[in-house]
Amino acid sequence: MTPYVPDFIPGCTPDATADPAAHPAPDSAADPARGSVPDGERLARAALTRLTEPGDETVGRWVRELGAAALVRGLTGAGPPPKGAREERLAGCRARATLLDPAGDLDAVARLGGRFLCPGDREWPGQLDDLGDARPLGLWVRGRANVRLWALRSVAVVGARACTDYGSHVAASFGAGLAERGWVVVSGAAYGVDGAAHRGALAAGGATVAVLASGVDVPYPRGHTELIDRIAEQGLVLAELPPGGHPTRSRFVLRNRVIAALTRGTLVVEAEYRSGSLVTARRARRLGRQTMGVPGPVTSGLSAGVHELLREEASLVTDADEVAELVGRIGELAPERRGPIVARDLLEPTAAGVLEALPGRGGGRLDDIARDAALSRDRTLAGLYELQALGFVERRGDLWQLAGPPSTSGTPKPPGRRPTVRRGGT
Amino acid sequence: MTPYVPDFIPGCTPDATADPAAHPAPDSAADPARGSVPDGERLARAALTRLTEPGDETVGRWVRELGAAALVRGLTGAGPPPKGAREERLAGCRARATLLDPAGDLDAVARLGGRFLCPGDREWPGQLDDLGDARPLGLWVRGRANVRLWALRSVAVVGARACTDYGSHVAASFGAGLAERGWVVVSGAAYGVDGAAHRGALAAGGATVAVLASGVDVPYPRGHTELIDRIAEQGLVLAELPPGGHPTRSRFVLRNRVIAALTRGTLVVEAEYRSGSLVTARRARRLGRQTMGVPGPVTSGLSAGVHELLREEASLVTDADEVAELVGRIGELAPERRGPIVARDLLEPTAAGVLEALPGRGGGRLDDIARDAALSRDRTLAGLYELQALGFVERRGDLWQLAGPPSTSGTPKPPGRRPTVRRGGT
Repeated sequence: MTPYVPDFIPGCTPDATADPAAHPAPDSAADPARGSVPDGERLARAALTRLTEPGDETVGRWVRELGAAALVRGLTGAGPPPKGAREERLAGCRARATLLDPAGDLDAVARLGGRFLCPGDREWPGQLDDLGDARPLGLWVRGRANVRLWALRSVAVVGARACTDYGSHVAASFGAGLAERGWVVVSGAAYGVDGAAHRGALAAGGATVAVLASGVDVPYPRGHTELIDRIAEQGLVLAELPPGGHPTRSRFVLRNRVIAALTRGTLVVEAEYRSGSLVTARRARRLGRQTMGVPGPVTSGLSAGVHELLREEASLVTDADEVAELVGRIGELAPERRGPIVARDLLEPTAAGVLEALPGRGGGRLDDIARDAALSRDRTLAGLYELQALGFVERRGDLWQLAGPPSTSGTPKPPGRRPTVRRGGT
Repeated sequence: MTPYVPDFIPGCTPDATADPAAHPAPDSAADPARGSVPDGERLARAALTRLTEPGDETVGRWVRELGAAALVRGLTGAGPPPKGAREERLAGCRARATLLDPAGDLDAVARLGGRFLCPGDREWPGQLDDLGDARPLGLWVRGRANVRLWALRSVAVVGARACTDYGSHVAASFGAGLAERGWVVVSGAAYGVDGAAHRGALAAGGATVAVLASGVDVPYPRGHTELIDRIAEQGLVLAELPPGGHPTRSRFVLRNRVIAALTRGTLVVEAEYRSGSLVTARRARRLGRQTMGVPGPVTSGLSAGVHELLREEASLVTDADEVAELVGRIGELAPERRGPIVARDLLEPTAAGVLEALPGRGGGRLDDIARDAALSRDRTLAGLYELQALGFVERRGDLWQLAGPPSTSGTPKPPGRRPTVRRGGT
């Protein structure tokens, strides 16, 4: 394997691949959700996801101080190393640099129908910025939905891998219930509670996001390959690791911070003392997110961790309505995050098309809306969820309808502040 | 049956029974815990427990304004009726007056080894005064232990009659655990959670109190006759109703306020929505007591009421240690309540004898202490519990020992503030 030369970075030895046009970010022209992240920056961040470990705050600080491209040069020996970098870290990076092919990684994820999101992209979920220097360098994404919009209306459902029948039943029922209420169910695709929560959401025809501790093309656990593929098809699969990346113990722990930060709240279904799910929930609490737990028998060791959490300051919940009430309550998004995404003229073409296809009065069925929008059922559903997250539409059972102004409607409103819809936008 | 004449009340027609000495309060001379309640007052209050229903705030106000004796006269037609009393209430009282024989009731309870406590008695549990005008007019008591001292260190454990195996297991385990930690377990002797809590405490050789919605001589439910007799033997059975009184639906509800007020906290083990146990717990909370709940499966209707309570503001507990910590925390008794009972010279003879029999250093076994105190095992145990409640002694497994000063002992202290022991008392 040829040693890596960071040739995509302006200032490095130019060659045929130095032309940014040769490695456009996939769909970069086609996807209006993409912001103004230069291709060099995207390639450098993609490279850093392979050179460094997720959640490394030192790396985050270096990126902030030096920029991603200069940091790649510094870590690969093509430039001065970052100040204070220890030799063994640099040696590790140089060893990993031989495997570096960020353009190839971007191509690989594009072939899976995916993309690599960076801070600065319109689709970047701004909640992750709450992690400070531990913010992901970027997110590898499989799935068609808009990560930012889905994250705005998402809840994490996590818990034990070796859960009881009770835990698995409860996780599936919360997953389905949240999905039915228009909430996006985020979890880690693990056995047990995670898988049950994803399946519950999928079974309800709802939206779900798997955040993996491996690359988006490395289904883990293997037994959930089919489930993860289904999530990528109907929802989103996210990872900090580049394609081919394998999970390690520490990567599972670090993955949990992404789940905590991405969502409005974390619900723990079953967890033993000292379980990773509790770490996720406590992280969520420190980030100002809701933390919630489902109680169970005090005689069950798999509920002991949840009860410990509930005795601290988490909220006890017994059904999806109670979860929706809690996460809806803090669902008041900071104006700077809401600003750019609520006006109709800033909608993605798909969502805008779906919005056009909705009947002016009353509700429409998914199939009718899809036909009128000339879109597939799946794309239409994804569009509807995005529009729901933004307050443009409401779901009533099987029907989707334009959201009315709060004052004129007697029916319950979805939680969260309703944005002002600029119907007249260009 | 001869119509009732309130002949025990000074000013009513005197006859042979008008001599107070003819109807002394049982044990009144032998029991130093008795205060300065005149026999006429005691008889009048005993009569009121038959004339009126428990927890009637109007009656409480009349007693406060007119005195118990004048109220008996007013309600029985022997004096002017209380101001604002409606005719149907007076007619009801006159009808009940035909059954009135307070001296006979006092004799009956004395034959059961019991007594009738009134506000003003040294043994009166002052906590009940928090009920204001709904304070019991008096307490009919079976059992040897000191009601006031036991109540000082008591926790209510209540819950569903038709509980699950889980509820019954958990109630028994909390009952035993609390008893092992020196806490007195108070409940209502009902089937299900109540019975399991009592049995757990008894099985651990601990202290338990049944508060009945019937007379102390009317075991209810009938199937718990043996259990209630055992509680009367090893603990305390309390009632607001006079001997022979039968429970009604409203009496169960009103009984619950006594359980809530008597104890430092109320723990609900299993309860459906709108259950009486929740009423008890909410009453306890309004009285400033701890309210606690044991979680269970969210799929169980018998845990739904507990979860509702926990979502309000009750504390989630999973074992007896957690309960002891909570009730111990608010166990700081108001000085006016602690004052008269912490000095050694105010101890009952039994407790004083047990205290004398404790070894000066190290712990002693129950049998040895009983032998040295020349008391029965049961009386010795009752004395030890009272001394523990007052902070004179500590239990370490099977051993009982004098409580050392907090500063010199490295072992954990029982919860609550330690009183100053006046060893040099008379």
